[in-house]
Amino acid sequence: MKRDVLIIGAGGVAQVVAHKCAQNNDVLGDIHIASRTLSKCEAILESVREKGAMKQEGVLAAHQVNAMDTKAVADLIRDTGAQIVINVGSAFVNMYVLDACIETGAAYIDTAIHEDPAKICETPPWYANYEWKKRDLCAEKGVTAILGAGFDPGVVNAFARFAIDQMDEVKSIDIVDINAGSHGKYFATNFDPEINFREFTGTVYYWEDQQWKEKKMFESGRDWELPVVGTQRAYQSGHDEVHSLATNYPQADVRFWMGFGDHYINVFTVLQNLGLLSEQPVKTAEGLEVVPLKVVKAVLPDPASLAPNYTGKTCIGDLVKGVKDGEEIELFVYNVADHKEAYEEVGSQGISYTAGVPPVAAAMLVASGDWDAKTMKNVEELDPKPFFTILDQIGLPTRVKDARGDHPWNA
Amino acid sequence: MKRDVLIIGAGGVAQVVAHKCAQNNDVLGDIHIASRTLSKCEAILESVREKGAMKQEGVLAAHQVNAMDTKAVADLIRDTGAQIVINVGSAFVNMYVLDACIETGAAYIDTAIHEDPAKICETPPWYANYEWKKRDLCAEKGVTAILGAGFDPGVVNAFARFAIDQMDEVKSIDIVDINAGSHGKYFATNFDPEINFREFTGTVYYWEDQQWKEKKMFESGRDWELPVVGTQRAYQSGHDEVHSLATNYPQADVRFWMGFGDHYINVFTVLQNLGLLSEQPVKTAEGLEVVPLKVVKAVLPDPASLAPNYTGKTCIGDLVKGVKDGEEIELFVYNVADHKEAYEEVGSQGISYTAGVPPVAAAMLVASGDWDAKTMKNVEELDPKPFFTILDQIGLPTRVKDARGDHPWNA
Repeated sequence: MKRDVLIIGAGGVAQVVAHKCAQNNDVLGDIHIASRTLSKCEAILESVREKGAMKQEGVLAAHQVNAMDTKAVADLIRDTGAQIVINVGSAFVNMYVLDACIETGAAYIDTAIHEDPAKICETPPWYANYEWKKRDLCAEKGVTAILGAGFDPGVVNAFARFAIDQMDEVKSIDIVDINAGSHGKYFATNFDPEINFREFTGTVYYWEDQQWKEKKMFESGRDWELPVVGTQRAYQSGHDEVHSLATNYPQADVRFWMGFGDHYINVFTVLQNLGLLSEQPVKTAEGLEVVPLKVVKAVLPDPASLAPNYTGKTCIGDLVKGVKDGEEIELFVYNVADHKEAYEEVGSQGISYTAGVPPVAAAMLVASGDWDAKTMKNVEELDPKPFFTILDQIGLPTRVKDARGDHPWNA
Repeated sequence: MKRDVLIIGAGGVAQVVAHKCAQNNDVLGDIHIASRTLSKCEAILESVREKGAMKQEGVLAAHQVNAMDTKAVADLIRDTGAQIVINVGSAFVNMYVLDACIETGAAYIDTAIHEDPAKICETPPWYANYEWKKRDLCAEKGVTAILGAGFDPGVVNAFARFAIDQMDEVKSIDIVDINAGSHGKYFATNFDPEINFREFTGTVYYWEDQQWKEKKMFESGRDWELPVVGTQRAYQSGHDEVHSLATNYPQADVRFWMGFGDHYINVFTVLQNLGLLSEQPVKTAEGLEVVPLKVVKAVLPDPASLAPNYTGKTCIGDLVKGVKDGEEIELFVYNVADHKEAYEEVGSQGISYTAGVPPVAAAMLVASGDWDAKTMKNVEELDPKPFFTILDQIGLPTRVKDARGDHPWNA
């Protein structure tokens, strides 16, 4: 049984994590939040207090830390006594925080792959470039590390595992991520623009015929008929979970599809073609060195600012095809979330909500022992059923569309 | 009689000016060129030598100068003995160079209005904000200053004067600027992107019913049937010459129309709506202060780099309507230039060519005395006929479309 949580990061997802930890502090114990900017942590705690989110009296504390300083993070883990670290900081800090957990024995949970600021879309499988190099060390030291436990990656990995568990053989996994919401701005990204655009400026890696294949962004699109949000166009994109699922299920084709409207694609294409999404610095006529992508980020709306006016729903799910008793079968395992409901509950928009709730469910499973694996795991390597049970309770219910119809996963 | 020319600036237009001065150094005498970056001046002189452009043996020299340092420019005027300064530097340096001319008595010629880097689209008439404040001083000291002597402003002002001289009463002046050329890049501006975009991010001022009116960019567009380039869509834009023509011919409506393709408008609209064309600094997440427009400039192709592959033609002209002997008449006075011919002659694309040839014609008229006004003048205040005569000879022939048909201006 592990208790007491340290949240790393103070962005939109961290806000959701803090609220959800507070709502479940009977299971999770003390709640600490730390980031580079103390005032951002304090603002999140203020919002938790305003909503009266704490289930019971308990510790709720903010700290300043440089998450790229492993020693500082390890000291903070020791000082706070946290046994579970939920890392929802920038994708650039993962390995430093993971090292601090390995050093202190705390369980580590994150929601997205580690990235080197100077590189985009490294060679597949992505996890092998950084995280998986520490797997043996985690096993040796008995440290629990759950990688990619957001929605996608995360819940969608569990969706895949759940469907595959009902098959004799899996043939394909197509993950579809549709945001049918509207924020009312000319253009905005739903999370950090720097990370958002980095996902789409490089090669689209996918797994087919037991090998890595490559496409360009927006090269391959198709319409999907989905529950609640209807027909939506999505494009094959690179995404973390493709890299672990392809490794764990090499016999299956694994693809990821992200929904984009024509307006998003137009803005993206203009910025991309002009070179404004580059992570490589350029020099202005006045001699100032600047990374264009960081300037684009600076002019775009803060994703957190979208929350109050966000309306509509998201639908994220896995279409999994395979064979059962000699018959071809398919399941669509999915969740629908609502932007406005998310804002009313935790003051965040739906994209932050879907990303922030699952790592808290994972932390609760580490606390209960169900997912306290004492080694490094991607989510599809863990039993999905207790995960779905908690997600049902804390705001992200799982449904299934199959030959029987459209029903809750456990009905 | 004035002789010996100092060119300020070393961009694409300066290259054309240097070539054309060299081709006419029997009239103009010594040729000096100066800019912030000596190597850019030297590269231009090298190109002049390569083309064997010098009509006769003579001085051809490069200098380094900070054009925003009036004393340094005045010293250079004295050192070189130049009696004519052609200022084709950035729009931010005009007033410093003009002051140096007033101090030394040299004639001043420029091709675009002075701009304050921190402001866009100031109150009309624009010339009254800076240049015209020095008019009395020029008259008092007998200093010749010819404002806006490029193509537009410049030749189009002479087109208007030429048409108006044939009327009893002028009713409207519509200036139409079409670049029907193709540079083969995804997107590029034909001159300094910073100046180019600044023209279109603010208010579109125009003169109608004897008052200043305002529109937004791309609010008002219409198709124009033009010689050589055919039917072309152009949009009402702000432009320097509207401000002097409206002041000199307040009884006429004065509008400027710039041709834009849908692709240009889309890219411009995306950049504009995102805030990337702003001249006001933003701060990146890392705390770096940077002007978005300067970053856009840094990622776009250097306008000079477009020249070798530029094909197609420009058509720039004035549709002037009025009354003659009680009858309504209209004239379209225009020039057609060819990108490839410009490159073959002077190593520049057509837009630089049309901007760079006219100030050299103006300098030749100052040298001959025809335009040595001993005061400050906009081009429409000077006799257009000797200007057209020289432009016919040095590469930009003027034609007229009227009730008689389509013919050279003097036929």
